[in-house]
Parts: sequence; structure tokens; C-alpha cells
Amino acid sequence: MTKILIVGGVAGGASAAARARRLSEDADIIMFERGEFVSFANCGLPYHIGGDITDRSKLLLQTPESFLARFNVDVRVMNEVTAIDRQAKSVTVKNLLDGSEYSETYDFLLLSPGAAPVIPPIPGIDNPLTHSLRNIPDMDKILKTIEMNKPEHATVVGGGFIGLEMMEAFHQLGIKTTLVEMADQVMTPVDREMAGFVHQEIQDKGIDLRLGVALESVDYTPSQSVANEDAGESAAHQHLCGDLNLQLNNGDSFSTDILIMAIGVRPETTLAVEAGLKIGDLGGIYTNESMQTSDPSIYAVGDAIEEQDFVTGKQTLVPLAGPANRQGRMAADNMLGRSETYQGTQGTAICKVFELAVASTGKNEKQLKREGVDYEKVYVHTASHASYYPGAETVSLKLMFAPDSGKIFGAQAVGKDGIDKRIDVMAVAQRAGMTVQQLQHLELTYAPPYGSAKDVINQAAFVASNIIKGDATPIHFDEIDSLSEDQLLLDVRNPGELEAAGYLEGAVNIPVDQLRQRMNELPKDKEIIIYCAVGLRGNVAYRQLVNNGFKARNLIGGYRTYTFAQK
Amino acid sequence: MTKILIVGGVAGGASAAARARRLSEDADIIMFERGEFVSFANCGLPYHIGGDITDRSKLLLQTPESFLARFNVDVRVMNEVTAIDRQAKSVTVKNLLDGSEYSETYDFLLLSPGAAPVIPPIPGIDNPLTHSLRNIPDMDKILKTIEMNKPEHATVVGGGFIGLEMMEAFHQLGIKTTLVEMADQVMTPVDREMAGFVHQEIQDKGIDLRLGVALESVDYTPSQSVANEDAGESAAHQHLCGDLNLQLNNGDSFSTDILIMAIGVRPETTLAVEAGLKIGDLGGIYTNESMQTSDPSIYAVGDAIEEQDFVTGKQTLVPLAGPANRQGRMAADNMLGRSETYQGTQGTAICKVFELAVASTGKNEKQLKREGVDYEKVYVHTASHASYYPGAETVSLKLMFAPDSGKIFGAQAVGKDGIDKRIDVMAVAQRAGMTVQQLQHLELTYAPPYGSAKDVINQAAFVASNIIKGDATPIHFDEIDSLSEDQLLLDVRNPGELEAAGYLEGAVNIPVDQLRQRMNELPKDKEIIIYCAVGLRGNVAYRQLVNNGFKARNLIGGYRTYTFAQK
Repeated sequence: MTKILIVGGVAGGASAAARARRLSEDADIIMFERGEFVSFANCGLPYHIGGDITDRSKLLLQTPESFLARFNVDVRVMNEVTAIDRQAKSVTVKNLLDGSEYSETYDFLLLSPGAAPVIPPIPGIDNPLTHSLRNIPDMDKILKTIEMNKPEHATVVGGGFIGLEMMEAFHQLGIKTTLVEMADQVMTPVDREMAGFVHQEIQDKGIDLRLGVALESVDYTPSQSVANEDAGESAAHQHLCGDLNLQLNNGDSFSTDILIMAIGVRPETTLAVEAGLKIGDLGGIYTNESMQTSDPSIYAVGDAIEEQDFVTGKQTLVPLAGPANRQGRMAADNMLGRSETYQGTQGTAICKVFELAVASTGKNEKQLKREGVDYEKVYVHTASHASYYPGAETVSLKLMFAPDSGKIFGAQAVGKDGIDKRIDVMAVAQRAGMTVQQLQHLELTYAPPYGSAKDVINQAAFVASNIIKGDATPIHFDEIDSLSEDQLLLDVRNPGELEAAGYLEGAVNIPVDQLRQRMNELPKDKEIIIYCAVGLRGNVAYRQLVNNGFKARNLIGGYRTYTFAQK
Repeated sequence: MTKILIVGGVAGGASAAARARRLSEDADIIMFERGEFVSFANCGLPYHIGGDITDRSKLLLQTPESFLARFNVDVRVMNEVTAIDRQAKSVTVKNLLDGSEYSETYDFLLLSPGAAPVIPPIPGIDNPLTHSLRNIPDMDKILKTIEMNKPEHATVVGGGFIGLEMMEAFHQLGIKTTLVEMADQVMTPVDREMAGFVHQEIQDKGIDLRLGVALESVDYTPSQSVANEDAGESAAHQHLCGDLNLQLNNGDSFSTDILIMAIGVRPETTLAVEAGLKIGDLGGIYTNESMQTSDPSIYAVGDAIEEQDFVTGKQTLVPLAGPANRQGRMAADNMLGRSETYQGTQGTAICKVFELAVASTGKNEKQLKREGVDYEKVYVHTASHASYYPGAETVSLKLMFAPDSGKIFGAQAVGKDGIDKRIDVMAVAQRAGMTVQQLQHLELTYAPPYGSAKDVINQAAFVASNIIKGDATPIHFDEIDSLSEDQLLLDVRNPGELEAAGYLEGAVNIPVDQLRQRMNELPKDKEIIIYCAVGLRGNVAYRQLVNNGFKARNLIGGYRTYTFAQK
């Protein structure tokens, strides 16, 4: 009889427990969770705060009782594993309800402790109006603060997934919101110019977005709210109210009524470190491709671990639910004699930001630069489905690839419709080892309500393949502001578009449909830098010019990519 | 200077013309179209009739003038190519406006004539109230009949893409509609049991759906509508009104006010046949992987041709817009000295049917059976995104694969949300040569509004891999009605579900969460046929029973697949 202990009862741990039982009826499975809840929907917490998910009980996917009935798993909530004795193969457990301690032996131990919010040591940060959001009790505290302090203004520090979702939650509740982000962009999985679309959306919704600044100190002025027991109010309703004055590192300061710290998470490694398990360079628990730690009897999964990056093969930290769930299932397989190997993490991710979705898979350009990888990139902006059918929205897609082989490095997309689909397609193509040339041949679903005969992905692949074959010479948005004397900007849009949308200073305007007749207005001794709205007409003009003996480049992604990169 | 003639100015022809010009400024490109319009949105026609696309001009994507201005292509509408002289490399062209004839020589000729609606020789079918829908004039005639005859009842014969879209268009216009289909299902790209979901949706909307019957004869009773020129009505408004009596081959007959024939299309091969070009066994123009016909100077693309099936490698006829567009682009590449090869057609397709989308890629089970391929299949029914987030809908997915290697043969999906995405993922995975085991590792976008930590595709892959590894023994819906004495049906749902949703006659009911305690109620000498709502709890029960020494099988897709297969 195999005895399996599991530390942590959410995504990875719960998946492992259920899978282990399906593989073996007689395994002894105990799952420890130091919190009150197991298998809750942690990705749903901001949406309950914001009111999208009205019923709190929907977040509680399983209970200790349901786990016992269905999977015969002994779930011990409010039980914290405090130490591992690897020699004796046992753990020390503290019952947080009565303070008692006991030990349990194991054949296999699974660590699935997750990651904890990073709270920097900012003066004044420890106050009753400042919260992070990781679990149900955190959510309940935030809801309580909203209820008691009735905030008119909220501040979120951190523009990642949770920060953006909490920003939207406050906005939905009618609370004026400031978002503070130290970097020059939100959503760091995508590159700066793609984040520009998100910045625009955030500002359009009236959010006070402050990029490139950090929170320096917090000053809390309390105003105690005392429960009126005569009026039947429970003492539990007693709560600290008040307001906060926030000081930023650019000298700005302002007052706010609730503060959410969402600058990131760090792997929970205390147990692993104290047990002498190997910790990776990035600070996560080291695991091999079988999800084993440096001790073959101890497995680890989820946000706490370092796993292999699918693209680079290097160790990476990816605190996302999908990998955690699949790793948990796989760890159970391997503990019970199977031989499953984890195939690496691409980091596929998506976030809803008001009307927009922003998503990515694989490496971004910042990472490619940092790692010195030789890459090329394309941008396309095209309709999510046939533009003549109602409801089409622009999909803005960025695709990075190897300039020689066409190997896919990563993709990013932003828009109001069909973003998840395009990044899913790219995630599958990348995992399958396809090249951008092969993407030209993809046969995706098409009917007017759903797509186009040449999908966004096909179109991006055409542009990328043109570059690889030498049929297109690209120039990118970040080169436009440093053109030389030997280059001439040519805007091939119609004059009305220049008026309505703006244009690049110094550009000559010849609409593409007049270019064949007016080509003689252009010099042959300069390089013509062509641009249009999104790059499509630019390519038509580029081909005309080059086939007529001109030197030219086409601005990939057109004026739209250039414009949003400034947002 | 290369001279390229193109026959047909819609998807394939127009794509080829534009691509050819981008590759060469000095090629002489003439595009002949016997109709009045080029490059129109033929997939949008039913949606204009139904009122989704209100502006008719949105269907006209390009005009001869716009093609000339942008691509310097000589577009000749109302000019029909009537003969090809392969020796002389010239074509005879008839100007349909003045009846004159002339000839043009070519270096390369591209045939992109499309496919024509099949109209069977049914007595009485040739009448002014019976239409097919292929192009703008067809659409205008249908609109005119609706305007003049003010139909209270419409009949559509044929349950394919156009038939279903026209059915929905009539329904949207408030016209009672009958759909007649000779097969026992609509949407033949999917299998019968998956079409069951569509049948239910069609009937729920009040459509009179008649499967397994054919139209035998039509009896037209005219009632001339004469334009009242005194009242300022133009003679063009003169129109034949009346009604039709339809006789079906099962003895039924009924009256209707407009009839749409949409039973399918056949490749337009007249020109090719008369020119002695090779025609394939399926009746389409033969092409090689370069899109060349049996005459290397003549290329052919689109609905008129036979191309290679991606899965079987055999010749196939796939009249869809996506392949036509990509083939046109590729033919232009090859005519101008490139060397592009077409990679085969999967037949990825999708259709909107009221609230539902129904989609497929690769081979269906009917085709696999017909070709004697050894296959296994799984069904899953799971939420389009996290079920605790509003708006989640059930995705019903069918996946067919090789039982040994796990090679993907095809996939089908039906539901109200996320259907296009799942079939796109499967289309990419199949094209990339992935196995169902590899699908387990797919890392797809997940946030509660978009997906689940274990996506539908991951879940289907888990089930398929369990079967391949021997961790699950499947039974399928079509075996349930012929169980033997040695098999016992076990329903592991909760009693309330049996009451609400129905159950299989003779089933023993033990809820999965009680099974461990009540296992002794089951015989060990019979094979236990387990089922639940969708197959998930059935798998938990299956693993319990098998791990306790019982013989068992789990109904893949559960009661839901069984139920909808009867619809």
C-alpha cells in the first residue's frame, strides 16, 4: 500500500489527489491544507469582488467531505506541514485549530504549496486597509474593507494579471481607481508596444494609470468603527476604517481608501529549503521532468517550482493554473509507477482588461533580446471575422520567429474578439514545432461569423514568409524616429485617413492606388520607407516600387503599431 | 513579359491576380468573369437575405476599377471564356453584353470557375419561385421573390451550409420554414450523433425539420403580379407570384411560397473537359500539388478542382473558401517561377445554426468506416470556460484517432461558445502531425472568461490517452441498445438527475459518491456498463470498480451523447 502525502490542496495538489485515487484504490492519500479551503477557484477571486461571479459558493469547487466521498482522500484543512524528515520519510504537522502537533510517514510526498504575494518592506504598508489577494480569506478581507470603509478611491499597485483584474473589479463597483506600475508597461508577458493597446483601454475607462513610478510609503489614518451591540451588530463587524496617504517615488502623493498590493508572487519554498531540497537559481523548488525534486521520494508541482522553459530549455518560473493542474496529474502518475514526463512550459497566458483581451505564448521580444537570440518579428492588424459580418473587431497580433529557419519563438495578441483563439493556435503550432512558413497552410474554421478565408494567422504567416524569402524588407516602428537623410517616408493611405488618424512628420503622401502613375515623384537614390494603416497596402506599394527598381522598406504593422507603441 | 489569363474573378481567381501583380510589375494579367461582379463575398449572401448584413454594398469587396487601380489587372466582367486552344495557348472569349467574340493568348492560364448548384431533374422544379444561391444575381432574385411574393412559408431542400444558413435567414425574416434533407442528418461533415445537437436546435426554433425524405415533384400555381405603372411602379417590379405544392417521396405534400434548392454543388468543369484536361474520379479538374492541371501551362484552383486529402492522401473535392484563396495565391507563385506546393486539404469547416456553432476538421467516422480505417473515438462535454464565470456553455467535442499510435484522424464540435477555437486547435494539431497523447500537454490560454485550466482539448486527450494506455475500457452510445445478459447497466448519477434528465431502461442507480460503500451490490461475474451525465464520474466509478476486481466499461460521452444521438 503506497502512502502519499500532499502539501497544499488547491490546483496541483487536488489534481494529484484525484488522479492518484483513480490509479489506485488502496493507496493511502492524505492532503494537508493550512488554510480553511481546498480546491477553490483562485482565478475567480477578483471576479467575485467585482460582482461578475455573484455567488461566493461557486468559488468552492470541492470540500473535504466531497473529496472523501468521491476519492477517499483524507483532506485535513487547517493542518500545516511544518517540517519534513527526509531520512525518516515523515512530516511534522501542526493542527492550526488546537495547536497540537503530530507526524505522518510517507512513501511519496508531493509539495504543492503555491506562491505568496510579494509585499515589499515599504514604510506603513502593514495596515488594515492594505491587502493582497491569494485566497478566499484574502478575498473576504477585501470585501469586508469595501463594505466597512466604503472606498471612493482605490489604488492597485502592480499591473500584472491580479492587479489588472482588481483594477477592473473596483471600476465595476463604481470606485475611482489608480493603477501604479513601476515598469513602463502593464502586462509584462507582452512587449511594450502591445501593452500600448491596454494602456489606451485602461485610460479610456477613466482609470488613473501611473507607469514608471513606485510606491514609496503609506500613511494610515485610522477611524475606528465600533460595532453597536445594542443594535444587534456582532462584534465581528468591528473594523478599522480610515484612509491612506500614498507617497510615490516621483514626488506625487494622494489619498486612497483601499490599497491592493499585486506586484508579483514568490515561490513558497520554506519547507523545501528547510528540508535541504535543491532550490533553483530563480528561487523555485528544483524539479526534473518527472516532477521529482532533488529527493526522488518528494515531488513538487505548481507555482512553487522551477520547470523547463519550452522554448529555451532553461529553468523558468511560471505561476499559472494550467501547468499546475497538469503537473499534479503527472506527479501522481509517476508516484504510482507510471513514467510521464513534463514537456516544458510555454507560459501561455491571457488577461481580460475591460473590453480587451491580451494574451501571449512563448518568448517575448524583451526575453529574446536579453538572451541574445537572433529573431525577426511581424505585426498584423486584421478583422476577427469577415469584416462584412456584424461584430468584427481588430485583432492585433505580433509574431516572433527565427529569421533563417522560421522557427516560432512567441506570439502576442490584443483585441476585443478572437484573441484567445489566435494565441491558442499559436501555442499549439509552437508546441508542435511548426515554422512560420507552415502557418501559411493552416486550414482554420471559416464562416463569416467566425473567421476569414485568410485568417489573421495565415496573414501573419504570409508577411513573415515574405520577409524570410526576401520578398519584403521590413522596417519596424522603433526605427521610424531615427531615419537618416537617405531615407524618405511615404504614406500610401488616402488623404482623408491622414487627416482623421494623423501621420508621420515629413511623410510624402501618395495613395497606393495612384502610385503606379506617380512613381516618378519619388527619388531612386533614397530608400523609400513606406507605411499605411496596418501594413497591407504598404506591402502592395513596396512590391510596386521594388519591382520598378526602387529601394524600399515597408513599416510592418503600419501606423497602427507605431501609434499604439506611444500609448 | 508573362501573360496570365484568369477564368473566374472570385476567391481563387482574385487572390491569384493580386498575388501575381505583387510578384511582377510587368506581367500582363487579365481576369475574365462571366458574371457582373468580381471578388464578392459569396459566404455573406445568406446573411444579407436574413438581414444580418444590412448593406448590400458590403458584399462587393472589389470592383473592376479598384482592381485596376491597385493591381493593374484588366478585369473583364460579363466576359465568358468559352473555349481553350491548348496548342495555340489561347482562349475564346464571348462578351456577354454585345455577343461579340474575341481571343486572347496566354503564357499561363488559371481556371477558377468554381462550382455550380446541383439542381436535380425534379418535375416542376423550373419555376420562378424556386432558387439556388451562388452569386449576387441569385441573391437579388431571392430578395425580389421575398419582396413580391411575401412568403409566409419557405422550404429549403438540403441541410448543408447554404441550406442551414438560408433556413436561418427565412426564420429571421419571420417566415415559417420547412427544411427537407434526404439523409438522416443535416451537416454531413459531422457524424449523425453530433448532428443530433443541431436537429434539436433547429426544432427548438420551430423549424419543420424533415429528415430522410426527398422532394419528388413541384407544382407551381402562378398569380401574375402586374406593375401598376399609373401608380408610378416600374415595369421592373413585374414579377411572377404564386405558390408551390411540394410532393415528397414519403407521400407527404404541402404548400410553400418560396423554394431554395441547396442540395450541393458540382465542379464547373465544362471548359476543362472540352479542352481535354484530365478530370479526376470525383468529377473535379485534376491538379498536382503545384496546382497545375494535366497541361503544365494551365493551373486550376478552388471549388472546381480535386486536391489531395491531408489525412488519406487520396483525391478529394472540398468546395470551401479557405483552400480556394490559398490555392490561388500559390498558383500565382508557381506561374511566376516560385515553387510552392499545396499541403492538402483537411476540410476544416464551421456553420452557424441559430445559437449553435457546428464545426469539424479531418475525417469523420462515416469516412473512416467507409475506408476501413481502424479507429477509436472519444466524446467530452465540458464548459467553454470556467463554469463559475458567467456565460459558460457546453462544448460537445468528438475526437477520432488511431488506437495504436494516437494519430489524429478528425474532430467535431457543437455548442454555443468556443467551438471555432477548439476545432482550430485540432486543425493545427492534426496538420502538425501531433498525437492525442501530445494533446494532453497543450498549454492553451486560460483565464476564467476564456477557458479552463484543463481545457476541453486537454480533457479529450486525457480520455483518449487513458483508452490507449488501457486505463479505460470504453463503450459507445451505439452499443448500449444491444447489451447482452452478461452486462449490467450502472447509472452513477444522483437520483435527482435521473428524474430530471431520464435514464437508460434497466439501469441500477448507485451514485458515484456511494459506490465505494455499496460495491457489494454489484456482481463480479457480469461486465458493469457504467454511465453518468458526460463520462467524467463514470470514469471515477470505472477506476474504482476495476481497481476492486470488477469487469467494467464506461460510456464515453455519457448519457448526453446517447441522448442527442437519438435527436
